[in-house]
Amino acid sequence: MNSTTAPPDAGGRIRELIVTPIAFADPPLLNADGVHEPLALRCILQLVLEDGTVGLGETPGGSARLARLQRAAKILPGHNVFDTTALCAAVDETLLPDVPSAHERGWTTSAIEVACLDAQGKLTGRPVSDLLGGAVRDSVPFAGYLFYKWAEHPALDGRPAIDDPWGEALTPDGIVAQARRMQELYGFTSFKLKGGVFPPDEEIAAIEALREAFPGAPLRLDPNTAWTVETSAYVAKRLDGVLEYLEDPTATIAGMADLARISPLPLATNMCVIAWEHLKPAVRDNAIQVLLTDHHYWGGLRRTRELAAVCEAFDIGLSMHSNSHLGISLAAMTHVAAALPRLDHSCDTHYPWNSGSDIIEPGVLKLENGEVRVPTGPGLGVTLDTDALERMHRRYLDSGIRDRDDSGYMRRVHPDHRPGLPRW
Amino acid sequence: MNSTTAPPDAGGRIRELIVTPIAFADPPLLNADGVHEPLALRCILQLVLEDGTVGLGETPGGSARLARLQRAAKILPGHNVFDTTALCAAVDETLLPDVPSAHERGWTTSAIEVACLDAQGKLTGRPVSDLLGGAVRDSVPFAGYLFYKWAEHPALDGRPAIDDPWGEALTPDGIVAQARRMQELYGFTSFKLKGGVFPPDEEIAAIEALREAFPGAPLRLDPNTAWTVETSAYVAKRLDGVLEYLEDPTATIAGMADLARISPLPLATNMCVIAWEHLKPAVRDNAIQVLLTDHHYWGGLRRTRELAAVCEAFDIGLSMHSNSHLGISLAAMTHVAAALPRLDHSCDTHYPWNSGSDIIEPGVLKLENGEVRVPTGPGLGVTLDTDALERMHRRYLDSGIRDRDDSGYMRRVHPDHRPGLPRW
Repeated sequence: MNSTTAPPDAGGRIRELIVTPIAFADPPLLNADGVHEPLALRCILQLVLEDGTVGLGETPGGSARLARLQRAAKILPGHNVFDTTALCAAVDETLLPDVPSAHERGWTTSAIEVACLDAQGKLTGRPVSDLLGGAVRDSVPFAGYLFYKWAEHPALDGRPAIDDPWGEALTPDGIVAQARRMQELYGFTSFKLKGGVFPPDEEIAAIEALREAFPGAPLRLDPNTAWTVETSAYVAKRLDGVLEYLEDPTATIAGMADLARISPLPLATNMCVIAWEHLKPAVRDNAIQVLLTDHHYWGGLRRTRELAAVCEAFDIGLSMHSNSHLGISLAAMTHVAAALPRLDHSCDTHYPWNSGSDIIEPGVLKLENGEVRVPTGPGLGVTLDTDALERMHRRYLDSGIRDRDDSGYMRRVHPDHRPGLPRW
Repeated sequence: MNSTTAPPDAGGRIRELIVTPIAFADPPLLNADGVHEPLALRCILQLVLEDGTVGLGETPGGSARLARLQRAAKILPGHNVFDTTALCAAVDETLLPDVPSAHERGWTTSAIEVACLDAQGKLTGRPVSDLLGGAVRDSVPFAGYLFYKWAEHPALDGRPAIDDPWGEALTPDGIVAQARRMQELYGFTSFKLKGGVFPPDEEIAAIEALREAFPGAPLRLDPNTAWTVETSAYVAKRLDGVLEYLEDPTATIAGMADLARISPLPLATNMCVIAWEHLKPAVRDNAIQVLLTDHHYWGGLRRTRELAAVCEAFDIGLSMHSNSHLGISLAAMTHVAAALPRLDHSCDTHYPWNSGSDIIEPGVLKLENGEVRVPTGPGLGVTLDTDALERMHRRYLDSGIRDRDDSGYMRRVHPDHRPGLPRW
């Protein structure tokens, strides 16, 4: 990095990046891979500036990503927090020899970019959305994220059971009941079902039950590439006019392109177009009609705006992906979604599944009427709850869990569960 | 606009936009349309906030663009300067019924966006490049912009002659001499020749003379669509290995796509891909290999970063276009070019042709070693010279000139000059 735009004493000099792995309770949510383990892993970033300002970030955990963040942390001190592009490029360059996947490197740079923007907002007294061109909407719509789930975790390995008031959902009626509860609690007016769990006809029946229960509500289904192109085409025809889009029915850009030629439904992805290098082939082959962006791996919040511009230029609809997350991620998602000139669909969020856990002080982020109001305080507008951070870090340390393994957990319960997709 | 992210009293509330048309001396530079008139027209924007902060902008003049800016000025007061996206969308919407061209509306919104960013930088104490992700380079390379030109303006209509030390340049030797002087004064290490003036073989000879005089210096030629596809192909073959790219040899995306299939040289444009809606067909048809961006019509500085991301995703090289301009534009061009992760070519600039005129106080912007150092002060980092502004506004008023007309001026001198391209 050769940039010296801001003199070293102008504020914004980075002292250190503190990366804290945490664990928090996660219900037994089912997906094509298996089932969510009792604990979800995240990493919390505190980017500390020389003047004591702290920029926050949050990103998925796991030993590889944690190690990369710790490695990135070594090169940040002394640089200016406003030099975000150059900092992220330097981190990317550091990781490149060992991490060939641009997508994987993106998780690291993205987390750092968000922490930089939070710090920039705090230094300048502006909400992060203002650093992205300003919020074009006061609140951001989210979809109720429905999961097939078990009533309880079968294997808690001696750890205390989590508070899971959601109960079992393994049938169309169970999914509708879950959706009703989601709507009652948070006011969602659109729903996404995580599929790929049961044979396609059962999941079609669940969607049809949702359609009947929520007439006019936008619906979508995401089997996480559990299906062949043929099965996907069958589902797309069955659910034509019912879903707003079909998300990742089948794997790869080539598979999606084959399907797109015969599917009456728009196809969406957060699995086959997950790095900048995938955009060109996806557009060339008309493989997707909707892109689920995710600032956690596309390079951060400014890059998400840039990605939205690509989607605008190439007539690709825009939606937003979510993994299990807490409030720092929700704040970041809300700021960037508020700043996007065109947001075609409500955003995904796992937030209702966090069992009431959070590492931010309560009060700022509320899911009401299916929306989250954009925080108006400086930066992300949320405050780290250091006690909660310590508690969740302790839980991480005590758990011994270092990597997510939905498939392994499922096999411990159902030894006949075979990994490998497509399944149908 | 429904955004209320920043409370009205948080700073940044817009009081008014003052738009001042100005005129400054321009030498008789030749191009495919005709010849530059003795005065170039620009509009200077002063976006005044309630707290007295002023954001500066500069954009081409002309009666239609001036009228649009004045119309836009009416809707800005009371809004927050950080709501740039929403403000520009509101301006765009206001113009839409009467200005169907997205490109034309882009000139207006872009000028306002730059003024907003200058004000934001001043409010937050950061250079504009920091608001764009930070400068990844301390200085920005520019190309020496060579023109065929007459020694003097033949028709000054009684106005005093301008100080034009450049003399005539109508031959390969004249162009080489101009390039040498450019290099001597400003240190340029790359050159662009504005072509479309003489028959292609003469312009090829000029480029070959430049190649001989400046071995290894990147060269490019821009005839502003003066040629047919066939003529363009002939020139491209003749100059293969000599030019880094051939700029707008022929008109339209279709014409460029036809040419691209047979041209050994990369093709560049700032004429057929000039609005977001042009990107999709241009990429689909592989019509261009280099895009000359211009923040004055692509939507401003943040949009230019977004455009650069499109170019990155679709393997299109990035360069920068310039019209006759003064220091506010040069500062904006420098900030955004400094912030672009990848800038593949030196930027164009007419700045050496401004006859020493400027509306900013001297000292910040210097063309040295072919580069401009990125200003480090808040906002664009330049200060309006109000005396110069008044003087140039007076010149505009007195001149009676309200629209650029290179072709009409040429016909006054050479009545046989026929407009209409391609000419060869």
